[in-house]
Amino acid sequence: MSLIEDLNWRHAVKAYDAEKKVSQEDLNKILEAARLAPTSSGLQPFRVIVVEDQDLKNKMVEGALNPEVMRDCSQVLVFAAWDSYSDEKIDKVYDHHTDVRDLPRGRFGSYTDKIKEIYNAQTAEENFAHTARQTYIALGLAMAQAAELKVDSTPAEGFDNEVVDKILNLKDLGLKSVTLLYLGYRDEENDYLAHMKKVRIPMEEFIIKK
Amino acid sequence: MSLIEDLNWRHAVKAYDAEKKVSQEDLNKILEAARLAPTSSGLQPFRVIVVEDQDLKNKMVEGALNPEVMRDCSQVLVFAAWDSYSDEKIDKVYDHHTDVRDLPRGRFGSYTDKIKEIYNAQTAEENFAHTARQTYIALGLAMAQAAELKVDSTPAEGFDNEVVDKILNLKDLGLKSVTLLYLGYRDEENDYLAHMKKVRIPMEEFIIKK
Repeated sequence: MSLIEDLNWRHAVKAYDAEKKVSQEDLNKILEAARLAPTSSGLQPFRVIVVEDQDLKNKMVEGALNPEVMRDCSQVLVFAAWDSYSDEKIDKVYDHHTDVRDLPRGRFGSYTDKIKEIYNAQTAEENFAHTARQTYIALGLAMAQAAELKVDSTPAEGFDNEVVDKILNLKDLGLKSVTLLYLGYRDEENDYLAHMKKVRIPMEEFIIKK
Repeated sequence: MSLIEDLNWRHAVKAYDAEKKVSQEDLNKILEAARLAPTSSGLQPFRVIVVEDQDLKNKMVEGALNPEVMRDCSQVLVFAAWDSYSDEKIDKVYDHHTDVRDLPRGRFGSYTDKIKEIYNAQTAEENFAHTARQTYIALGLAMAQAAELKVDSTPAEGFDNEVVDKILNLKDLGLKSVTLLYLGYRDEENDYLAHMKKVRIPMEEFIIKK
């Protein structure tokens, strides 16, 4: 199947079959697509927390828009972004880059000096606005990968970030939750979206040619 | 090729062959992947401006981090988000949803009332922060689709938003530029990234299991 066929196949599932679990093999591929997502300056300024524990999921539903969807899905992926940038974080990533590429550390120093200057001049809030944006690239690619495997998924912003951050101790990791991705297999009977036509705005409205 | 193979194939190309153009057929598929991107509440709060005109590209490079990449690529896609939400915009999308699904208009009224309340309580700046995030999902899927077609691409945040908004008259359309995606075919000799190993942080660092 092509990506376009996969994207037409998927929809934001509104009811999961709590008995069906996504295999470790499929989960690994979904996480790999998220890991391969391009990000600004290649910094990958976020982590994915994989929540399979039912007790944790049951706690995380507090304040969620569709608690039963989170409760019944197979895994919750929490896309959590760096709460800010720092020189140390940037150096760590670029030291890894040069090590993997057999280049001397500091090879990209003039570039990293420039981005450090930009991020150091911004507030943590401004930096988080930027790291948070990057997570959406990975979120989209994880959904596409799930669809390729015929694994259902539901992206979710409708949850209580403070509850999730606290339950997962994200603050201690310098992370803040941005989005969730529920994975699993649809409960065809109770998923009201399963039989509705996919709707997108027409191409002629979506694009503007110049 | 699988999505993972496509993501491993692609990289942010740093030099394009100015003579090679992406075909209309391939461009249409890339735009279709962006159009199919899921977005918060299905609102698709952004548009994609397709810039092929060389004079326009030459003007848009002012203040860009890699002006020659923008200049030499085949097309620039400008992902531009709604400057804010409004009741009218939300109603227009949902009227289209109900029309396509042969449902009475207002069928999702209780839901749209809820999101209108949320967005009306926020500043335009807060709403734009949210619409801007959504564009990254489409940006990622457009890159994946380009890779599936072996079309090169470069996502770019390093440009002067004010310059681009002004040249494309985005303000009049209620839009603000967020990211660019350059499309084309790499200039193998001058693209310094073409022969470098792809680097990502190791999976064991990228994910946290709970």
